[in-house]
Amino acid sequence: MKLPLGYRFAATYAGIRKVRKNDLALIVSTPAAAAAAVFTTNRVQAAPVRLARKHLRDSGGRVAAIVVNAGNANCATRAQDRVALACCRALAKELHAPVAQILPASTGVIGVELDASLITSALPLLVAKLSDLRFEETAEAILTTDLVAKKAGAEIALNGRTVRIAAMTKGSGMIHPRMATTLAFVMTDADISPANLRPMLVEAVEGSYNRLSVDGDTSTNDIIVLLANGAAGARPAPKERLILQKALNLVLEDLAAQIAKDGEGARKRITIHVSGARDEAQAAQIARAIANSPLVKTAIAGSDPNWGRILSAAGNAGAPFDPAKVDIALQGVLVCRGGVAASFSEDELKKKLDLAECSIQFAVRGKGRGRARFWTCDLTHGYIDINASYRT
Amino acid sequence: MKLPLGYRFAATYAGIRKVRKNDLALIVSTPAAAAAAVFTTNRVQAAPVRLARKHLRDSGGRVAAIVVNAGNANCATRAQDRVALACCRALAKELHAPVAQILPASTGVIGVELDASLITSALPLLVAKLSDLRFEETAEAILTTDLVAKKAGAEIALNGRTVRIAAMTKGSGMIHPRMATTLAFVMTDADISPANLRPMLVEAVEGSYNRLSVDGDTSTNDIIVLLANGAAGARPAPKERLILQKALNLVLEDLAAQIAKDGEGARKRITIHVSGARDEAQAAQIARAIANSPLVKTAIAGSDPNWGRILSAAGNAGAPFDPAKVDIALQGVLVCRGGVAASFSEDELKKKLDLAECSIQFAVRGKGRGRARFWTCDLTHGYIDINASYRT
Repeated sequence: MKLPLGYRFAATYAGIRKVRKNDLALIVSTPAAAAAAVFTTNRVQAAPVRLARKHLRDSGGRVAAIVVNAGNANCATRAQDRVALACCRALAKELHAPVAQILPASTGVIGVELDASLITSALPLLVAKLSDLRFEETAEAILTTDLVAKKAGAEIALNGRTVRIAAMTKGSGMIHPRMATTLAFVMTDADISPANLRPMLVEAVEGSYNRLSVDGDTSTNDIIVLLANGAAGARPAPKERLILQKALNLVLEDLAAQIAKDGEGARKRITIHVSGARDEAQAAQIARAIANSPLVKTAIAGSDPNWGRILSAAGNAGAPFDPAKVDIALQGVLVCRGGVAASFSEDELKKKLDLAECSIQFAVRGKGRGRARFWTCDLTHGYIDINASYRT
Repeated sequence: MKLPLGYRFAATYAGIRKVRKNDLALIVSTPAAAAAAVFTTNRVQAAPVRLARKHLRDSGGRVAAIVVNAGNANCATRAQDRVALACCRALAKELHAPVAQILPASTGVIGVELDASLITSALPLLVAKLSDLRFEETAEAILTTDLVAKKAGAEIALNGRTVRIAAMTKGSGMIHPRMATTLAFVMTDADISPANLRPMLVEAVEGSYNRLSVDGDTSTNDIIVLLANGAAGARPAPKERLILQKALNLVLEDLAAQIAKDGEGARKRITIHVSGARDEAQAAQIARAIANSPLVKTAIAGSDPNWGRILSAAGNAGAPFDPAKVDIALQGVLVCRGGVAASFSEDELKKKLDLAECSIQFAVRGKGRGRARFWTCDLTHGYIDINASYRT
């Protein structure tokens, strides 16, 4: 993946997580980038979330650097605010940047004190390591229970110049779409003002991270940041912003789909398509109810074409539809026609459901034009093994 | 358990479920009882739910008999309405009762056609078997994935006469409180009009079945029926109805707690106590969010005092509270004081969490008087084994 210009990266092991695996990551933009962010809607918000929100406000939407630690959420602890601020201050000093241009982000266990000195003492080395070649290892450093790093990018021509987007994200459990999910850092070298950046991020998040669920739990630490540093020298005209928006949407959809695939314990990614709802919001509501049903997720885990559970889950969505007008297809095979069983070969469909990619189509006949796509994963022993194990 | 007067019971194997285990149950009241019922709020409602609602309306709240089958939900099939009606008609003829005084109820797989003749041909024998001694086997016949039958009763003195309550219920998966959950049949020989019966049932359901979750899935077939046939010859005065109400509340709480204990795959029952919320509704909202969090349920399964997940789940409830004023106790041991970690022995608490009964106390300091109790169970491999297995 070719990276946007003007971004450098670094990662190191600061001793925050017990296993010796990089746990501190740094993203620096030169010049400081225009920035927009979307945060968790959980009432319990970690200090880095609150401080990042304040810094964005204080800086008028300018970000010089993002410092991220994994292994500790810096949430629900006595020192959380002091720790987040100390890290930002130390980094601002190293980079000779205003402290309000530093965004902190944390992910990991909640309720365990985080020793700020682990981070502040690692910063000089981290800054010294900054390089535009360290994108991959930085994407690795922000992971927790993830099995694979998640990256996506795009390249488009604007005004005769090449503009690029690069993005990294993490997330495997505690995933549920409410304005944001997990950590995600999206960088472009296009030149866009903070005011124009925000609606672009909101649109892209709506069709991606807000259409994603692993377990219905929304974290205390979610943040998605979009940076635009203008290093490519291309300031898109309003019409060109639509091209950039499209590329941005695809990048975030790509990331969200990667998170579903790497859901804790997941062996299958499930893509849910709802159509014929009254509007897009109701389509998403129905899709979300299906995605959050443990009975649907375990049926897919067992390759059981038990469409009655899908119909029942949709019935709990709170969005109106006529059950007698519902068609349901699994892996493209019609299993329910007009609310009752269709004729299909269970043995053949069972084999198709053994694949790592499963699709559920839920279509309401009629004039409704509301459509939505939603990603989730199956629910397996693996999810329980990961989350029932004693904290390590 | 001593049963209320005037009720007879019967159960048989009608060939609806594949395993040879009674799957057809009958409850008859002589004289016909005043009745109140609460139904599922799922948008997809099985034919027996719709027909039971109609019959209650047509009969002015009078019930002579309830016919229940397990093994097939009679939902999302072509013939569901005809099947439900045929069963009621056949039974009405056997009992010489008006068809509107017959309530049907079904539980089992959704979307598979149910052969009405299996039921109608079994009815004559079933009626011949009716006896006040067959309460236990009837309670067995309504079960699906339940491991144990669930019964509760009470005996009180009203007006110098003895009045009794007896109740049976089923439910193990697809359990989530929205107006009703699972099947439940509650009988008393007190003399109460349908108009007075309904608010009594609604109050009792609110503190019991509406405070219960196994997996957050609300079934298409839920019904709770309360019958009062007056056979004890005691018509309670308004003041005495309060005594009866209290007994009824206890009976339904008893049943709901039994369902949580027998949740699919459950090894532990979790009782959640929330206090200090603004009002009871918000307390219940917070308790429900904690109960529905897979991360909390797996942590308890693993005896992990990971209170950060409890705080995070509560933060997603949508009810306002100040995280810095939250105290959390597990098994009576304070693990979080004022929103941050309390000092406790993790090893000792881990041992206490190995017990089959676990408690979570979530208290918000301050003036809020909202309290709620909620039941759920841990999430284990067993839940996945039961629900990922191919339908049999």
